[in-house]
Amino acid sequence: MDLNADLGESFGAWTLGDDAAMLPVVTSANVACGFHAGDPVTLRRVCEGAAAAGVSVGAQVSYRDLAGFGRRFLDAAPEELTADVLYQLGALEAFARVAGTRVRYVKPHGALYNAIVTHEEQAAAVVRAVVEYDRTLPVLGLPGSAWLRLAAGAGLTTVAEAFADRAYTPEGTLVSRRLPGAVLHDPDEIARRCVAMATGEPVTDVEGGALVLAPESICVHGDTPGAAAIARRVREALTGAGVALAPFA
Amino acid sequence: MDLNADLGESFGAWTLGDDAAMLPVVTSANVACGFHAGDPVTLRRVCEGAAAAGVSVGAQVSYRDLAGFGRRFLDAAPEELTADVLYQLGALEAFARVAGTRVRYVKPHGALYNAIVTHEEQAAAVVRAVVEYDRTLPVLGLPGSAWLRLAAGAGLTTVAEAFADRAYTPEGTLVSRRLPGAVLHDPDEIARRCVAMATGEPVTDVEGGALVLAPESICVHGDTPGAAAIARRVREALTGAGVALAPFA
Amino acid sequence: MDLNADLGESFGAWTLGDDAAMLPVVTSANVACGFHAGDPVTLRRVCEGAAAAGVSVGAQVSYRDLAGFGRRFLDAAPEELTADVLYQLGALEAFARVAGTRVRYVKPHGALYNAIVTHEEQAAAVVRAVVEYDRTLPVLGLPGSAWLRLAAGAGLTTVAEAFADRAYTPEGTLVSRRLPGAVLHDPDEIARRCVAMATGEPVTDVEGGALVLAPESICVHGDTPGAAAIARRVREALTGAGVALAPFA
Amino acid sequence: MDLNADLGESFGAWTLGDDAAMLPVVTSANVACGFHAGDPVTLRRVCEGAAAAGVSVGAQVSYRDLAGFGRRFLDAAPEELTADVLYQLGALEAFARVAGTRVRYVKPHGALYNAIVTHEEQAAAVVRAVVEYDRTLPVLGLPGSAWLRLAAGAGLTTVAEAFADRAYTPEGTLVSRRLPGAVLHDPDEIARRCVAMATGEPVTDVEGGALVLAPESICVHGDTPGAAAIARRVREALTGAGVALAPFA
Repeated sequence: MDLNADLGESFGAWTLGDDAAMLPVVTSANVACGFHAGDPVTLRRVCEGAAAAGVSVGAQVSYRDLAGFGRRFLDAAPEELTADVLYQLGALEAFARVAGTRVRYVKPHGALYNAIVTHEEQAAAVVRAVVEYDRTLPVLGLPGSAWLRLAAGAGLTTVAEAFADRAYTPEGTLVSRRLPGAVLHDPDEIARRCVAMATGEPVTDVEGGALVLAPESICVHGDTPGAAAIARRVREALTGAGVALAPFA
Repeated sequence: MDLNADLGESFGAWTLGDDAAMLPVVTSANVACGFHAGDPVTLRRVCEGAAAAGVSVGAQVSYRDLAGFGRRFLDAAPEELTADVLYQLGALEAFARVAGTRVRYVKPHGALYNAIVTHEEQAAAVVRAVVEYDRTLPVLGLPGSAWLRLAAGAGLTTVAEAFADRAYTPEGTLVSRRLPGAVLHDPDEIARRCVAMATGEPVTDVEGGALVLAPESICVHGDTPGAAAIARRVREALTGAGVALAPFA
Repeated sequence: MDLNADLGESFGAWTLGDDAAMLPVVTSANVACGFHAGDPVTLRRVCEGAAAAGVSVGAQVSYRDLAGFGRRFLDAAPEELTADVLYQLGALEAFARVAGTRVRYVKPHGALYNAIVTHEEQAAAVVRAVVEYDRTLPVLGLPGSAWLRLAAGAGLTTVAEAFADRAYTPEGTLVSRRLPGAVLHDPDEIARRCVAMATGEPVTDVEGGALVLAPESICVHGDTPGAAAIARRVREALTGAGVALAPFA
Repeated sequence: MDLNADLGESFGAWTLGDDAAMLPVVTSANVACGFHAGDPVTLRRVCEGAAAAGVSVGAQVSYRDLAGFGRRFLDAAPEELTADVLYQLGALEAFARVAGTRVRYVKPHGALYNAIVTHEEQAAAVVRAVVEYDRTLPVLGLPGSAWLRLAAGAGLTTVAEAFADRAYTPEGTLVSRRLPGAVLHDPDEIARRCVAMATGEPVTDVEGGALVLAPESICVHGDTPGAAAIARRVREALTGAGVALAPFA
């Protein structure tokens, strides 16, 4: 099983998350590429840390929106979006290579991640960028999304993820953050669910039913004070249950 | 002989220069990398055009200063500057590779170009970025600059350039732009000087003496209305004089 | 009748439009505020020029999107959008005051202009900013838009504009730019239509019918090479027809 | 006596400092204006908080350098710098006015603060902006700086500050941060020195001598975890010593 989290989201004088605490926990690091976060010095450090820790570097590509941290939908034209993704992939690659590794996968960030669940045109634009850049790069995302579907159609390797701390509907989709109970906070419950996800056991959906998720990667968070502790708890539970942790890429 | 010029300096809705007119003229394109100019769609187009025209793509790395077009000295720390240059090199490389070519050399832009003539610390920081990124990349710059000296000391290939339209002192340095006569405007005179530079003949310095410049590349401008016409005039004069034009890289 | 156009849309080394040519033509200048275009030196010059020419300065507020020139919808939260508009209003006001005038009206730019034709939440957020800033400021926009409707509901003065060079449907809405004939190019036809609009006569709609538009301001363009000439032609035709030109604000 | 600190230095998703903790402590808030930090929503909140707490709002104007947090010298031309400062003054003023107050003084930030201690041309450019904007605004800065000298020469009210946690030379200048002991960390010592400064008593300089500083304002920091606690300690010591705290503006 793979554990992924967002890293490299500091910018200049501003720190976000605790990259040093998360690198020993995850197996895949979704590293910001400078468009929503991630100044070059930060990118370099994260890539060096990831390489040293045996963590896979993924490109967390985003809309160009520092002020909104990439969390706001931007109606970029496909040609622009493809070029924006290529720019970010190349920029992060420089740091990955200098650190002795490579960009090993692509996971869009924030509003772009959400948009391309359904926005076919933008999903296709991001897929095109990956195909043009390196068609051996796997792409990470939400099962059932246009992003993974179009990527698969273009011959890319797709990797489906589940979220450690999110409630699911009986249909296997995420409960909207606007609804109560959408985000789980109990570290023990989160850890138990992750073990279930990783071993093919069902988790409890939001209506109390049994739901089998079969992710190839589990997404944990690292951007809040308690997040690193929860992520560590998840890792310990997984290894304690005999689940081998390794990067998918 | 090589002819280089700055390209890719448009940004979003703003156009600067006439890349399409310059690509048939030059042999090396100093392509902006997004920090002083150059949105991703523009970078892609220029790289495609350069690849199609057999023009070498160089990375015109800059301080991060869109509002100042990279023309203002910025007291970036060496670690920042090295990371900024790596980021830009990687970003441009993505477009070069997608276009079927590579970044083939590095030429700093504007205030950074000027600063590292004498600013040893910043010059060393840019050299470090090139060494880390790819020590086979030649670097283009001013003869006698700290930039070329430190690059050579680090084992990089250095390429010295002369300016087609600038007056020189008897010592072979540029006449300050603040002085009258610093910039030449007569296309015929500019073309004659370029032929002299390329064939080992002396040009007339600002005091009327004979000065032999032996550049490996001649820099022409493309960012003003009449510039492309002058650049074409230079190219025609060079080829008319039997000077073979080819990228140095 | 008022003639308005977008000015101040240069940024740093990049020039867009010809502010000096447009200032003698228009009576109201929609001046960029730095979020889609308009560096501070440019804003200062345009405000000084407008004050000297007796042209009203309006704030052309925008999404924060230099790379997209404010032409891409951005899903900014209402609280953010209200604050972004306040920021821009204040910034432009500084230059207006130093030039001896004031910001006299508000006209959103580009994708924001288009969004708030129908996007009630964003329209309300921009209205809120104007109400908070100065409830005596008129707002300029499209007749029938949520923007003008909500502004009127909040007690603001609204000013409806028509476009000199756009085709209209029989219902009085703009023909989509994606359809042929959406944009008019013949200066004489454009000028004739403007005179009709200003004198209460009908113009020909896209289906050949007669359509009476009764704008309080006519929007002309200044951002293309031929645009200033067309704008001058419109002005001459209006004054030739006895239409007095004066700022609405 | 006045206590000033830097506030409003968050940006989008990134938080810096604890504005809510500092507002009850200081009497003057140097509020970022968006060029080195300070998104519009943050500026609005700080201005509202300052107005509610009776704290004076000052404009902490900066070079345009988000990536460097305004801490890097930028060789902006005087005309640019004047316009940049006007832009920032106006932007912050919008939020101050909406909050029911005004921008009451100007204190440059970071590298600009340091540059205009000696850089006459940039100091004059910032002074010019204040003179043009509102010649009744006091300016806050370092005693002996070109900034205060030129401001006084231009008829502006100048306010000299001392630093609560910095060591001083016998000549009354700051000990360079590169030297050991330049920054004080003991809250009790810092508080004692502030009381001395405020009551006309000497503090101990870095060589052990007695140095009388007579600041009109004392600068405390709010951007580190322990900073707010130290600032509170200073305030308590001052009020405990009978020093009345009030904004200078």
